[in-house]
Order: sequence, then structure tokens, then C-alpha cells
Amino acid sequence: MSISADKPRAVVLLSGGLDSATTLAIARDEGHDCYALSVHYGQRHVAELDAAARVARALGAVEHKIMGVDLAGLGGSALTDLGVDVPNAPSEGIPVTYVPARNTLMLSLALGYAEVRGAQAVYVGVNAVDYSGYPDCRPEFIAAFAEVARLGTKVGVHGAPIAIRAPLQYWSKAEIIRTGVQLGVDFGLTVSCYRADPQGRACGHCDSCRLRREGFVAAGTPDPTHYCVEFAPSRTGP
Amino acid sequence: MSISADKPRAVVLLSGGLDSATTLAIARDEGHDCYALSVHYGQRHVAELDAAARVARALGAVEHKIMGVDLAGLGGSALTDLGVDVPNAPSEGIPVTYVPARNTLMLSLALGYAEVRGAQAVYVGVNAVDYSGYPDCRPEFIAAFAEVARLGTKVGVHGAPIAIRAPLQYWSKAEIIRTGVQLGVDFGLTVSCYRADPQGRACGHCDSCRLRREGFVAAGTPDPTHYCVEFAPSRTGP
Repeated sequence: MSISADKPRAVVLLSGGLDSATTLAIARDEGHDCYALSVHYGQRHVAELDAAARVARALGAVEHKIMGVDLAGLGGSALTDLGVDVPNAPSEGIPVTYVPARNTLMLSLALGYAEVRGAQAVYVGVNAVDYSGYPDCRPEFIAAFAEVARLGTKVGVHGAPIAIRAPLQYWSKAEIIRTGVQLGVDFGLTVSCYRADPQGRACGHCDSCRLRREGFVAAGTPDPTHYCVEFAPSRTGP
Repeated sequence: MSISADKPRAVVLLSGGLDSATTLAIARDEGHDCYALSVHYGQRHVAELDAAARVARALGAVEHKIMGVDLAGLGGSALTDLGVDVPNAPSEGIPVTYVPARNTLMLSLALGYAEVRGAQAVYVGVNAVDYSGYPDCRPEFIAAFAEVARLGTKVGVHGAPIAIRAPLQYWSKAEIIRTGVQLGVDFGLTVSCYRADPQGRACGHCDSCRLRREGFVAAGTPDPTHYCVEFAPSRTGP
């Protein structure tokens, strides 16, 4: 018998971006020992994985796992297929940066990790407001996956199912940033850019950079993002 | 414009075992061009992957992809963790060969592959009768995943969702074997054993071997399984 009681455990999907860093801070603030999981699915922006490791360390994650999945072999997305250009302009409908079944896959890996570690919850930083047209960021998708978690795991059958928590679901980017700052997240450690250079410096132009910049402006918080030297906020070209 | 009309496409999860080989034969018989997907999740019985390649070729799959996922890093199952012994005796409840969230993960990969290839269906050889206590082989799990497929993909949002088909769901092992034989499956190419040697020869003793042997007896079909030289059907020890 141990003297100190164990804290409840949570697995947190950590991409290295702004949203998932705030999600990790929330899971910790809600009293969990946090097990961070980053998935390397052949995306071009590997700088995010370095950022994830920095964020996990800074926010006191108990463990940080990076799992590899060779999704790049499937093709079909600008984020994993080098033959498709990442666009600058906001796109109509579902963007070409959509990775087929990405969140389903990442939640599946998180679910397996949670079951092995005895975690009570999986936290994921999806967001319905700024969701940019990704179908697997919508609340109804998260609810459907929670059913899969309940019916498809040993703990779901024999005990309490592993909860799927998406605390940022209905927040604006500005609210996410303000909450992160309150909970001690250093957003200078995070990388959101789809085209970050190997040092994790952001292009300033892609959809993700644009949403992030606008978020800091709306939150009234200084933007600590490290941009490429070529980037100046007034420039709009590629 | 092409002269010959394209057949509908299906992704078929192909483990190299008896059930998934029959499932591939059914998907083909139902008029699909079949895209076979095998997932290498760190399982010890790699001989199954060689078997999958043989089966895909023999049954005329258009493409066969093997995707790697380092699930072994998570531990927690006798099939991926070398520290846990694979048992001989049938076990009560959920067996230690259970891989956390395995079918959720494999269906997720199949879903992404189906979306990229424009497939209308994913076929999976799960079975509720011989399901050996795996929660993620039950019909209610498959139904929950179908909802995830509908809500979490681009095609599900903008067109017809990708169907999740589990044709073996309510069949006995004998029915699966009889159907496979009718559809031309050579079960001598398949490997079901949890402890197959590198040449794909079966131990004859594990749960999977036992179910398979009993199935051939019940189907009244000669058992074409390649067993290890040490195995004789009368022997019951390890």
C-alpha cells in the first residue's frame, strides 16, 4: 500500500501547437497526472514534435510518447503529401490540409494508451469555432468517438468508460490563448505553422499562422511566436 | 473518359488469418475492386503479414498496403509485449492477448485509406460468435464505429458515408470455412496461430489454433494448416 494517493490519470494528445498546449494545462489544472501523446503521421511540420516535447516538459507531463504511423503512404493531404501545395488563402469548405481520418486515428492511439496506463480520460484540443471545415473536429464526431471508447475497450465493458474530453470545443482562439496564459502556458514554446522551418519558426502566412496571429490580437496578449526573418505582418504574398 | 466502368472499391482489413481471407473473398464476390490493408502493430506473429501478402495476391486484390504502428511501445498485451506469456488454455472473460483499442485503430487506418482511394466500404472480419471476449469484436462496437465513419470523414459530410461491413459477424467458424472454400480461398496460405514460427507453421495449442482446428472439424473440411513438426493433435501440453 502506498502512502500518497495516486492522482487520476489523463492522456493528452499533444501536437506541439497552441490548442493542445492549453489542453494539457487544463488537464493538469483539473487534477490529473498527464501522459502526453504525440503522433508522427508523416506530416511535414516535424518541428511541431520538438515543440511538443518542450511543452510536455514545461507543463510537467509524467510521460511523453511519440508514436509513428506511416499515414504519408496513403497520400491525399497537403500536410502529408509533398505533391500538394499548402495554400495561403483561407479556403472554402474542407481544406486540402485535411488528413483522412486523422482525429479518429489519433483518438484511437490515445484510447489504447489510456487503457494501458489506467487513465480515466483522453483530452483532445479540437475546436468547433475555429475548426476550419474539418469534419472530425465537430462535437457530434467527438460524441460518436466517446461511444466507440465505451464499447470497444476492456475498461468500458467492465468499469467506467474512458471519457473523451474536448475542453476547447466551443472556445474562440482568443479564449484559448487567455486561458493558456492564466494556466502558465508559454506559447513561445509552441509551433502552429503548417510550414515551420526546422527551427520551428513560423511562415506567418498559412491558414494556421493567420488564425493564431488574429487570436493573439483578439486576446490582447503579446504574440510570442518565432517568425521566419522574411516575415513581416504587413506582407501578404507567399 | 474511360470505356470500361470502374467497379466500386472496398478496403479490406487483412491480417493473414482465416477470417480476414474469407472476408476478402466475400468483398470480391460482392463486386468490389479490393484494396487490402494489413497493419503491423508490433505483434510477434509477423508470419501473418507474409500470409496476408500471399492471400492478397491469390484473391486478386488491386493493392496491398502494410502500415506500421508502434503499438508495441504501449505494452499491455501478450501479442505485443514479450514480457507476457501467450496462454494455451481458453481463458475466462477478456484474454491477455487483447490489444488495447486494436480494432478501433485498424478501422481508423482503413477508414483513412478508404477515403483516399474513394472506396465505398471497409470490410472487417470480426466475429461475435467466436469473439473470445474481445469487446471490439461486438456488433454494437461496429455500429458505433460506423457512426464515427459517417461523422468524421469528408465523404461522410458531403456524400454517402463509407460503410463498415462485418459479414462474418454472426457466423460460426465452420460457416466461415465453408463460405471461404466455396469462394475459392486456399486456407493453406493463411496463418492464425499466435505463436507461428518464421515459416508460418502453427503451434497447434494456442486459443487461435484450437478454434481453427475445431472449425475445420465442424465444417467437415480437411485442415490444410501447416503445423510445427513437434505438433500432433493428440498432444495437449505446451
